[in-house]
Formats: sequence, structure tokens, C-alpha cells
Amino acid sequence: MTVSYQYDVASSTSGGFTRLLFKWKGSLYKLVYRELFLFVVAYGAMSITYRHFFTEDQKRSFERVALYCDTFMNYIPLSFILGFYVSFVASRWWQQYMAIPWPDKLLHSIAVHVSGYDDHGRMLRRTMVRYLNLSLVLVLRSISSAVKRRFPTFDHIVEAGFMTSTELQLYKSVPSTEFNTYWVPFTWFTALVREASLEKRIIDPYGAKLIMEEFNDYRQMCGMLWSYDWVSIPLVYTQVVTIATYAFFIACIVGRQFVEKSPIPYKMKPDLYIPYFTLLQFFFYMGLLKVAEQLINPFGDDDEDFELNWIIDRHMKVSYLIVDTLILKTPPLTKDIYFD
Amino acid sequence: MTVSYQYDVASSTSGGFTRLLFKWKGSLYKLVYRELFLFVVAYGAMSITYRHFFTEDQKRSFERVALYCDTFMNYIPLSFILGFYVSFVASRWWQQYMAIPWPDKLLHSIAVHVSGYDDHGRMLRRTMVRYLNLSLVLVLRSISSAVKRRFPTFDHIVEAGFMTSTELQLYKSVPSTEFNTYWVPFTWFTALVREASLEKRIIDPYGAKLIMEEFNDYRQMCGMLWSYDWVSIPLVYTQVVTIATYAFFIACIVGRQFVEKSPIPYKMKPDLYIPYFTLLQFFFYMGLLKVAEQLINPFGDDDEDFELNWIIDRHMKVSYLIVDTLILKTPPLTKDIYFD
Amino acid sequence: MTVSYQYDVASSTSGGFTRLLFKWKGSLYKLVYRELFLFVVAYGAMSITYRHFFTEDQKRSFERVALYCDTFMNYIPLSFILGFYVSFVASRWWQQYMAIPWPDKLLHSIAVHVSGYDDHGRMLRRTMVRYLNLSLVLVLRSISSAVKRRFPTFDHIVEAGFMTSTELQLYKSVPSTEFNTYWVPFTWFTALVREASLEKRIIDPYGAKLIMEEFNDYRQMCGMLWSYDWVSIPLVYTQVVTIATYAFFIACIVGRQFVEKSPIPYKMKPDLYIPYFTLLQFFFYMGLLKVAEQLINPFGDDDEDFELNWIIDRHMKVSYLIVDTLILKTPPLTKDIYFD
Amino acid sequence: MTVSYQYDVASSTSGGFTRLLFKWKGSLYKLVYRELFLFVVAYGAMSITYRHFFTEDQKRSFERVALYCDTFMNYIPLSFILGFYVSFVASRWWQQYMAIPWPDKLLHSIAVHVSGYDDHGRMLRRTMVRYLNLSLVLVLRSISSAVKRRFPTFDHIVEAGFMTSTELQLYKSVPSTEFNTYWVPFTWFTALVREASLEKRIIDPYGAKLIMEEFNDYRQMCGMLWSYDWVSIPLVYTQVVTIATYAFFIACIVGRQFVEKSPIPYKMKPDLYIPYFTLLQFFFYMGLLKVAEQLINPFGDDDEDFELNWIIDRHMKVSYLIVDTLILKTPPLTKDIYFD
Amino acid sequence: MTVSYQYDVASSTSGGFTRLLFKWKGSLYKLVYRELFLFVVAYGAMSITYRHFFTEDQKRSFERVALYCDTFMNYIPLSFILGFYVSFVASRWWQQYMAIPWPDKLLHSIAVHVSGYDDHGRMLRRTMVRYLNLSLVLVLRSISSAVKRRFPTFDHIVEAGFMTSTELQLYKSVPSTEFNTYWVPFTWFTALVREASLEKRIIDPYGAKLIMEEFNDYRQMCGMLWSYDWVSIPLVYTQVVTIATYAFFIACIVGRQFVEKSPIPYKMKPDLYIPYFTLLQFFFYMGLLKVAEQLINPFGDDDEDFELNWIIDRHMKVSYLIVDTLILKTPPLTKDIYFD
Repeated sequence: MTVSYQYDVASSTSGGFTRLLFKWKGSLYKLVYRELFLFVVAYGAMSITYRHFFTEDQKRSFERVALYCDTFMNYIPLSFILGFYVSFVASRWWQQYMAIPWPDKLLHSIAVHVSGYDDHGRMLRRTMVRYLNLSLVLVLRSISSAVKRRFPTFDHIVEAGFMTSTELQLYKSVPSTEFNTYWVPFTWFTALVREASLEKRIIDPYGAKLIMEEFNDYRQMCGMLWSYDWVSIPLVYTQVVTIATYAFFIACIVGRQFVEKSPIPYKMKPDLYIPYFTLLQFFFYMGLLKVAEQLINPFGDDDEDFELNWIIDRHMKVSYLIVDTLILKTPPLTKDIYFD
Repeated sequence: MTVSYQYDVASSTSGGFTRLLFKWKGSLYKLVYRELFLFVVAYGAMSITYRHFFTEDQKRSFERVALYCDTFMNYIPLSFILGFYVSFVASRWWQQYMAIPWPDKLLHSIAVHVSGYDDHGRMLRRTMVRYLNLSLVLVLRSISSAVKRRFPTFDHIVEAGFMTSTELQLYKSVPSTEFNTYWVPFTWFTALVREASLEKRIIDPYGAKLIMEEFNDYRQMCGMLWSYDWVSIPLVYTQVVTIATYAFFIACIVGRQFVEKSPIPYKMKPDLYIPYFTLLQFFFYMGLLKVAEQLINPFGDDDEDFELNWIIDRHMKVSYLIVDTLILKTPPLTKDIYFD
Repeated sequence: MTVSYQYDVASSTSGGFTRLLFKWKGSLYKLVYRELFLFVVAYGAMSITYRHFFTEDQKRSFERVALYCDTFMNYIPLSFILGFYVSFVASRWWQQYMAIPWPDKLLHSIAVHVSGYDDHGRMLRRTMVRYLNLSLVLVLRSISSAVKRRFPTFDHIVEAGFMTSTELQLYKSVPSTEFNTYWVPFTWFTALVREASLEKRIIDPYGAKLIMEEFNDYRQMCGMLWSYDWVSIPLVYTQVVTIATYAFFIACIVGRQFVEKSPIPYKMKPDLYIPYFTLLQFFFYMGLLKVAEQLINPFGDDDEDFELNWIIDRHMKVSYLIVDTLILKTPPLTKDIYFD
Repeated sequence: MTVSYQYDVASSTSGGFTRLLFKWKGSLYKLVYRELFLFVVAYGAMSITYRHFFTEDQKRSFERVALYCDTFMNYIPLSFILGFYVSFVASRWWQQYMAIPWPDKLLHSIAVHVSGYDDHGRMLRRTMVRYLNLSLVLVLRSISSAVKRRFPTFDHIVEAGFMTSTELQLYKSVPSTEFNTYWVPFTWFTALVREASLEKRIIDPYGAKLIMEEFNDYRQMCGMLWSYDWVSIPLVYTQVVTIATYAFFIACIVGRQFVEKSPIPYKMKPDLYIPYFTLLQFFFYMGLLKVAEQLINPFGDDDEDFELNWIIDRHMKVSYLIVDTLILKTPPLTKDIYFD
Repeated sequence: MTVSYQYDVASSTSGGFTRLLFKWKGSLYKLVYRELFLFVVAYGAMSITYRHFFTEDQKRSFERVALYCDTFMNYIPLSFILGFYVSFVASRWWQQYMAIPWPDKLLHSIAVHVSGYDDHGRMLRRTMVRYLNLSLVLVLRSISSAVKRRFPTFDHIVEAGFMTSTELQLYKSVPSTEFNTYWVPFTWFTALVREASLEKRIIDPYGAKLIMEEFNDYRQMCGMLWSYDWVSIPLVYTQVVTIATYAFFIACIVGRQFVEKSPIPYKMKPDLYIPYFTLLQFFFYMGLLKVAEQLINPFGDDDEDFELNWIIDRHMKVSYLIVDTLILKTPPLTKDIYFD
């Protein structure tokens, strides 16, 4: 579920982002606590070993290794790599949101141009929008684990009323092993447009053109959704970033230990037992990596992922409202209060 | 209210940005003075404690801790994280401005194509544009605290003349618990387009198409506004940035204190009592965080937030002017002064 | 005036950017010489004071302060903040150029579709394009100091032939205190389109649609121009950048002085009297700030600002050429030299 | 083949990117192991020479050179240059994906508007879409080594059924030495549109306009594909980045060796034999360079390159399905389960 | 000429970018060798002076100055400024490529909708496309030195067949001192569209609309080309970057010299005579500046500049092919091999 916090940041003068720090859902804490736990355990184990089990000689060796790690881990250009990567992922994340089609414009166009309030007219409009939603369900099902869980088989789609069993049979008759056939209901939609034009249910030809133009937009966005699933961010880019982050913190386990003696005197930090700043770094860098992990597939199960199942339901209900239920429920034309 | 300062920077040769430093409204000073006060108090308290209440031993311990903080706070890659975050938020902020729909193009299209200067024609045009504005009010009311305050209940919208009470009843009859129904007046708008086409008030079919195309644009931008409210910037990103900034300044309270003795001689800065450069850093980093806080929700109450209530009024007045009042007040066709 | 130097950089092999260094108009030198003078005076005064008026004790104190400044001014992340800010301003600057509407496409459309070579037809076309230009003048007058200076009152606009006095009266009758009414002539334009359609001067309905579509584009860009003026880059962002830059150079006045003794031996730079590298830094950082100052309001009076007055004249002349003068001056249809 | 890993990162809470580290196809390891091997061999050879073959004097000289390299290789701003370059290449890579035309919208438009279920009608539609696919094959063949390998000669295209031999002859009769003539089949397509309009197979004129509009989109994207091939990223940019990376690692071979004596004591790292952090750097920097190498030509043979041959097959099959096979296989109009 | 190297980088596994290092045309070496030569001469002269002509005292002074330069030249944030500037220039470079109009879509539209295979019809179509190409030649001539060289006078354009001498006279009769009149042939084009509509050579009105829409696109891109020439990147930005780079390398001439004695012992690098790393830096930074120099005016004479003369010829030939030569050479409609 998307975590909306717009209201909490309406004004920057009354607390600002501070209150956001105490949220749990979708928060940094929830996302990194597992990794943090592992890191703390490893760091503590190393610390105890050094303090209690090492001989003097081993300590001296360890100190050299720790110094070595501490010096050289700065060679890992973490903030730079993470910065570019996160900004790449984040812009892609928003593009993916923008690729989710909303049928509203198409619904209004159908409501205006496909006429007839008899059963046939109503069936026509309702079936047209049902096919639009059906194709969306089919493409979302193939890219989102959440939608897939909701509709594990085609029968679940039939049950939910997006499809009749006759339609399912027709759909299944199209071979779909080589490529995704989510667009088959779109062919039924266009057949209905053709039919409605011929039957003069769509009176003006420009009306059919408007519907087809809006439909093509809708069609293209379904294709985009599929494309974003098919073409991931190159694996090697993600691997480089992940390895860099993990390697950094593995080096921290050794390099950031308190050591009794150090050849560089001013590095002899006080023995605080808890490596505060290393933990802070853990929060920042691991936090940024988690930002990327959340955003890279916004059609999954994370707290921040787009609620596709809610969108599907919303589209279905709004569709029937706009092309059928509300179509005759319009207020009478009256003069507004500033009329004269 | 938006702070416009374009005129002050018309020329870069006469003072340039310097004069901007003396503005208060929407300024850095206004935004950070609370946080600055807290920081100064904490820093001063720590300074006094160190100078007057600590024993020699405690002082030596404190000096080690201060050195530790001073060294390690550079591990917080603040400028980098803030830079990327602010540039992400700022580009989103402008996209949000661009998503505010302006009906002007649609108004001109209606003025050209919906004919009739009798009462019915006037009512038709006025009602069409009223519905456009009504839907905008409804969507803005759900995303902006300022608009919500202006129209706390639907009755306020009726009172302001955006809606009749009959329309309100119709609007309320649509179930709106599951999803936002700001678009219901749009269905009334499209019904009027259909009606006007059938009554031949819209003479040319291409005129209706133009109106529907512009309407679809307008419709989509209302949806975009709602989307920007629904899908915030991932919480974890904002948290990472906020924690980094706050942690930095908490570390400053200790790490930037004047200390009497330091193992690194050249760090023995003169005892200036006031940590000038730390305060400067506070201005920069906290200032950048405040930039982000202001821009992240431009529909709130900040000095820089878009004046949605003014926009609503402007749209309403311009609407009636373009589709009704000015429609017959056109100058006679004359030869211009270069005619021959 | 825009400084065009495309020809000077046609080839990168013959001198490249080198020759650009010797330009004065719109140059770095012209922009920073005032600030540079102030900086040099301040720096010199401090230098003389240190060398000739300070006692030994004062010198030692000053040296500590200078070292302190020199060390801590690196805490000001100037290049980073300036980099992001300049890139933000520069992309906005180009968007603003792109928002300046060019009527050419609309002119061609009018020339093709509004027929009639009699006086009425000519008046119709000429008046249509005059209204387009008039609205542009009105909106530019409200956002650009240069255009405002050219047309200080509406009478100047009438004089220049953009408006008749009858039109001015009509224009003034629209209340304009609450919002900008630059779009009023656009309502006259659309009235002419309606009229021309009814009179069958625009023969094909699709012709009127094309004109309206292009007009809507033009209309939107005028609105964009106004928006860029209304919504500035958040003041606080500009303030943060300006304060950072100024603070840096104020710190330089102390921190970059030659000092006789320094606790860090290798910082004992040779006494060169002139702080070459600090001056270089002044050029870079102040130069970047000046880039931002120039670009932030491209409708002002800077050397680089868009020549709106020239654009207005150009549009007016091209308008009359395309829709009137050249409309019948077309060459006879002949076979080209490759015809067979 | 594109490496899709969206499912593996559906949730950031269950392992996140960790599991991606164990993939081989398209992975960092697969891409850098050759270069890594060369580097390790060179590094090892240098190490052995130093330890076993150098005299004491040679060792001292080597140590000075090593220190020199170690100090000065930090002058190579690798992470910065690589960061900007990779982000430039990556955004171009996605634009190239977006430039691959998908005929689906055009197919639906043809299915709606080109009527007739007799053999002639079917031939008409099938031939139209065949020409669309043929031009795509021709342009892809000229830019992609993979498609070129599949269709080494025009006869292979004829064999695969994209072209008849009559068409091939016609195609070959157009001189193609000076410029690419992949668009010749598009002229045949437009001829069919003209013919179908005249024969009233396309009943509504707006239908032909829709087809032509969608066709123009498709046409433009084929041109874009060709443009991306013609205009590469400037060679000198790629060379700068490549030289920087290689120079860095050549300097590493000397500068990162363990040395027995060093004038800077704290650089006397423990003798670990394996330069862990240098290897990590190798992974990061060479990995980023490999990201760029993969993305710079996504029409080649890399693991991540777009599967153009699959796309060609998919387009062909989907084309025939939409405009022919499925056109009459539409479900009957029924009431949906929420009808009343 | 554009340097295409897509084929060389088809696969990242077989050498990758390595082979690009051995290209000369458009290469780093070709671009920087002049500057490199100057730098090497200056550096060598300074080196010889120091080693052979300086007295001991002068040497000690020089060493202090060299240390000073070496320390302070790091204050020049070269990689940062160059990074932002190059990325700004590079994105503008691609936008400029995208602004070059390709008439292909317009040609197809004319071929479909302007009917008639008699001489008059052929002349009509051929003249229409000739005017399109003529305007493009005129605008390119005013912005590109290469095109200007090809057509030094208007007579050369007439000779090349883009214009008849009658047309030239008409063109010259339009005053062109105040603004560029490259668009005059476009008025002739639109006159032909009007004529063809009236003569019913363009049968369907929507056909004329399609032609006008595509024409408006083409028209706008010609305007964009002119705009990119008129509005350069602000001069001051380019100057800042150039001065920064040159100042850096002038400082290198002193600061990177081998010195016999240095107060900082570990800076006493071995006397290698050749400053390898400084030369590397020269390659990177000067290389990046050269990237910018090449890309800033892509209509010039650099190796990487767009081959506008080739484009002009290509457009002319393709124009006649599509609207005339190939229009009747279409293959007969046949069943494809998968027909049943």
C-alpha cells in the first residue's frame, strides 16, 4: 500500500519532516531492522573476540588489519554510486506509475458518443468498458505478484465478473505460449466499436475517432506496463551497487572496531562500545539501498508499492458508474447564482 | 502564497541576488529560526557545562568524545544526499504546478462552438463551465488543507455558488467511501455536451470533438493532482534525509565545541565562543532541508505554496467572462494602421 | 540581447573555446567586475592592516583566526550546492524560452483556411493575427521590464498599432485588478473564428478545428509565460545559494591571507601578495552564481536575456506578411530540373 | 536476451537485492572475469618480481614509484566521470527501447476501419501489416548484428514470408547505395491505404486519418531507430571514460603493491598478498564501465540486449491475429453479472 | 561527419570499448594533440629552466611556489564544473539533432492524399516537396557553416535545383534584413495546399488537415533549428568552464614539476622526467572540454557534426521517390505464405 503523508507535511513551519520520523509503516526502521540486526551481531562478535579471546600478538595483527580496512574502505565511492543509482531508479519508478492506465477519459468519451438507454445500449457500453478492465487485469496479473495472488487462475477472473466463461474459452483458444496475449479482449473492444458505428449507435464518425484515439492511449500504456516488467534495469548495475554497499559494511565490521593501539594517534577514538557513527552510516547507505529496492518493482508487495488490486476495483466500479448508472442522473439546467 | 521575485532579479548587474537576502516572507530566516534557536540553546548549554561544571578529568573525556564526533561526522554524506533529494523534490514540485488545470483553452473552445445567446444558450455554457470548476474544487478540497479550510462542508461549496443544492443531493447519492468521486460533475458536463450536440447547439461535429479533447486534457490533469497526493515520495527516502541532517547537527553540538586541549594541534582553533562556520553549515543544510519541506507538498499552507483558493476564484470569474459576458462584446472589424 | 556565438565554435579544432575568452558583452568579466573590485579592496585592506598595523600579539591572534577560517571554510559545500542550483535554473531558463509562443504555425493555418482576397477577407485575417500579437504584448508587458519600458501605458500599445482605441476601451471595461486579463483579445480572436465559420469564409470545418488547435497551443504558451513569472524558484533556495557564496568569500578575506607564522608548516605558502588561486575561485564560484542570476529571469535586461521587443516586432511583421502580403505572391507551378 | 528479475525484487523485505548476487546470466562476474583475470595476472607478476627478483636497490626505487602511483592515481576523477557517463548512456538506452515501434495500436485501427471479410479484404489487411513488419525488419537488419545474422541476405527475408520475390525485385530496383531504403515498403502501405479509401473499403474518412496518424507514429519510430544507430555518443566521450578507467587500473598494478618500507608509516598496510580493496574497486569501476558497454548498443549480442528477433516474430504473429484471425472471433454481447 | 561506432560495441564481452581506443577520426588524440603539444613544450621549458638555469636560491623559491601551486590548484573544482557543463551541453546536442526535420511522414501524407498521375498532379506534388526542402536549405544555410560553404549564394541553390530563378526573385522581394525569411517557401507550400483542396486534388478534407498537421510539425522544427542557433548557451557559463580548465593546466606547469627538495617529504616523488599522471589529467579534463566544444555547435565542421549536406541531398532524393517515382510502382496484392 502506498504510504501517503502529504497532510503531515502541509506546512514546513510546524514541525516539518520531524513527525515523519515516528512512522513505522513504510519506514526506514521497518526496512532495515533485519540487516541491522545481522550487522550488530557480527560487529559485536568481532568486538568480543578481539577484547577477550585474542592474545597480544593477535591483537597487534588485528589492529593492522583494522587500520587497513578503515583506510581503504574510503576507496568505495558509495555515496556517489548510490546517488546516481537511486535517482535512476526513482525516475523510473514514477514513469511506471504514470504508465498505469486510467480509463476515465475513455469512459467519458464512450458515455458521450455511444448512445441508447435500452438494454442493448447499456450492454454495449458496459461490455466495452468491461473488456478494457479485463485486459488491464490480464496484463497486471502477469507483472504483479499481488494481482497474481488475487487471481491465481482464470476462473477467479470469471468469478470476479471481469469475464464470462464463453469469453474465457475464446481467450484460451488463442495460443499464448510465445507471447503475452493480454490484448485479446482489446480486439473484442474494437469489434464492438466497429459494430456500434455500423449500427449508428455511435452517431458521429468523429465520436468513433475520439474513442479510438483514447483507446490507443490506453492500449499503449498497457504495453508500457508490460515493457517495464520485461526490460529491467540492467542486472549488472544493480549488482555493482549491492556489492559496493555490502562490501562496505563487511569492511566496517573489522575496520571500525575500537582498537587499543593505533599507529595514527588521533584515530585512537574513545572506547564507546557502540559505534554510533557507523550505525548512522548503516542507516543512510542501507536506507538508500532500501529506497532502491522498494522502488525498483512498484508492482510487488512492499509497503510503498502501488495498490493495483484497489485500482482494479476502482476502475471497474467507476466504469459502470460513468457509462451506465450516472448517465441519466444529471441535474436539471438552472441559472447559477451569478447569472445576472 | 507564492513569493514572486522575478522583478528583483531582472538584471544581474545591479545587485543581483543581494537584495533577495533582505526579504522575510518565504525566506530562509523565517523557515529555520525555530530550529536554529533549539540548536543554539543546546550548543550553549553544552558549552557552559564544559567550561564551568566539568572537572579536569571529565574535560579530557569530553575532548576525546568531541574529537571523535568531529572526525566521524564527516562520514555523513550530507551534501550529496541532500543535493539529490532536493533536486528530486524540486522537479516533482514543478510537475505538480503543471498538473493544475487551467480551463482557458476549454473555455475558448466552448465559446466558439456552443452557440446561442438566448437564456438557454447562456445557461448551457455557464453550467458547463461551472461543472468544470466544481470538479476542480472537489479534487482540490481533497488534497489541499487550504481549500479544505475554505470549504469545510459541501454546503460551503453550494453557498459559494459552485453547486446548487439539487446537484449536491445528486452528488451525495453516489457512494464515495471507497474512492474519490470528484469526477461526478464531469459526467454532468459530458451529458451537456451530448445534449448540446443533439440539439444542434454545437453545430459542427468537429466542435464537439475539440471540446471533448480539451475536456479530456482537463480531466487528466485533475486525475494527476489526485495522484500526486496519493503517491508521495517514498517515506523512507524522506526519513533517510531527515535523519542524516538531524544526526549531523546533534553531532555538531558535541563535536564542534571549543576544547582546551586537542591531540591534533592545528585543530586547536581560537576560542571564538560563537561557532560561526557551524552556524553557516546550519543555514545551508537546514535551509536545503527546508527547501524540500516547502516543495514536497505545494498544496499546503507554506509561504511558497500555490494559492489554490485564488486560482479557484480566478477560474470561476474568467469562466463566466469568456463563455458569457465577453462573448458579444467584441470590437468592430477595422483596418489596422498598416493596412496599405 | 542574446549573445550568439555559435559561429565561433563551429569547429573544435581551430582554437575552440579560446576565442570566446576575449568577448566582453555577456562575459564573465563584465558580470563580476563590480563584486571582484569590492573583494579585492576588502582583501587588500585586511592585508595592509595585518602587515603594517598589527602588533606581534595581534598578528599571532590573527594567524589563529586565519587558520581557523581557512580550515573551516571547506565545510561550505559550495561547488555542490552551486552545481545543482545552476543546473536547476538552466533547465528552467530553456523551458522559459520554449514557452515564448511563435505564431508561425497558426499564421500558415489561417492563410490556408480563411479565404477571401477582398478587403473584408484581408481585414479579417489581419485582425485575427493582430489580436494574437496584442495578447502576447499584453502578457509580455506584465512580465518583462524591457517590454514594460517600451509600452509604459496602453496608449503606447495603441500608438504602435497593436490596438485601436475602441479596442482599448473595450479592454479597459473588463475588471483587471484581481487577475491578469491579457487574454481578452483572445476572446475577440475566437469571436472572429466563429464569425468566419458562419460566414463560410472558413470553408472546411476541419480548417476551423486546425486553427483552434493551433490557437490553443498559442494560448497555453502565453499562460505558461505568465506562470513562470508568477511562480519563481523558491526564494529560500536562492537565498541558501547566495548566502553560501557570499559567506565563502567573506571567510576568504581572512582565511586566505598570507601569514608569517603557521602551526602547519606546509601551509606557509610563499608571500605572493596577490592570492592568485583565491581570485580564480572567485571567478568560478561568483561566475556560476552570475550564470544563475542571468538565467533566473530571462525576460529582464541582462545581456543574455531574450530580446522580447525584437520578437514582438518580428511577429507583427511576419504576421502581416504571411496572412496578407505574400498570400497571392506565389510562384507559378513549373517542372523542376529533375522532372524526368 | 533481456534479463528480467522483477519477480525477484517484488518485495524489499525478503532478501531484497541479495538474491540477485547469485545470478550468472547478465551478471557482473560474467562481464568482468576476463578483464579481472588479466589484471590479477599482471598484479601477481609484478608482486612476484618485487618480492623475489628485485635487489634491495631496485626495491627502494620501486617503493618510491609505487608511492608516487598510489598518491597520484587519486587525481583520476573516476567515480565522477563514470557517474555522469553511465547516467548519460543509461537514459539513451531507455530512449532506444522506447523507439522500437510496436504496431499494436495501428493493428487495432486497421482492424476497425478496413472492412471486408472476403479474401480480398483479408489479403488487403494482411498485406498492409506485412509491409509494416517488413520495413521494421529492414531497418533492424541494418542496425542490429543479431537481426543481420538471422537474415544475412534478402532471400532469407523472402523465405521467412515477410516479402514475396516480386516485392524483392521492386525493392531492389530502388537505388540504395546513398541512403537506407528501409521505408520503401511503407510507400506500398500508403498506396494500399489510398486504394482502400477509393474502393470504400475504408468507409469513414476519419478512419483513414486515424490509420495514417498511427502509421506516421510508427514511421517516425523506425526513423528514430536508424538515427540512434547513425549518431553515436561522441567517440571522444567514450574514449575519455575508457582511458580513465584503464589508466587507473594500470596505475593500481604498481601503486597498490605491498611494499616493505614506506616513508608514510601508516600506509604500511599488512601484507595480505591479495589486494582485497583494489579488487573491490575493480569490481565497481570496471562494473560501471561494463554497464555502459552493455547499454551503449542495445541492439547487439549482449545478455541485456533487446531480443529483436523475438520482437519481429511476435509482431508478425500478433499482426495476423489482430487483423485477420481474431477479427470475427468475438464473444456474444451478454449482460455482465452486475448488470442490475 | 558523424562517427558511428555502434557495430564495434555490439557486444561487451569481446573487447568492449578497447577497440575504440585505436580510432583516429573524431578521437581524443586528434582533438587534443595541439593543446597537448603546447602544454608539453611549456612544461618542458619550465623543467629545463629549473634544472639547468636556476641558482640554488632560485630553486628554493621555485620549490615554494611549486608547492603553493600544487596545493591550491585542488581548489579548482574542475571535475564538478566540467561534469555539469558537459551533461548540459550533451543533452542540448541531442535535442538539436532531434530538431532536424525529416519530411518522410509529410511525404507519405502527400503521396496518399494529393492525387493525380498526370503531369499537373506530378508537378504539384514535386513542387510541394521541393518547397519543403528549399526552406530547410535556407534555414540550414543560415545556421551551418558547412551548408553555407556549399551554397555561398542563392544562385547556387537555384543551380542545385532547389529553386527556380522566378522563385528566387519572389524570395528576394521579401525584405529580409530584420529577420530571417527562410519560411517564405512555406507560404508557397500552403498556397499549393489551398489550391489543391479547391481543385479537389485533395479529395478528403481530413487529408488536407493531416498534411497541414504534419507540415506544422515540420515548420516548428525549422523554427527550433533557428532558435538553437540564436540562443546559445550563456557565454558566461562557457567562459567559466574554459577559464577553469586552462587555469588548472597553467598551474600544473609550475605545480607538478619535480623538485629536489620539498618540505613535505612524502611528496618527494621519484624524478620520472615525464609527469605521467599530469598528462593523464590533461587527457581527461581537456578531453571533456573537447567533448563540449564538439557538441556545442553540431552544425559546424567537426568530425562529429551532423552531416547536413548529406541530409539535404537525402531529403531531396527521397522526396521525389516517395511522392512521384515510387507512387505507382507498387507490388500486386497477393496472399502471403501463411494465408491459410
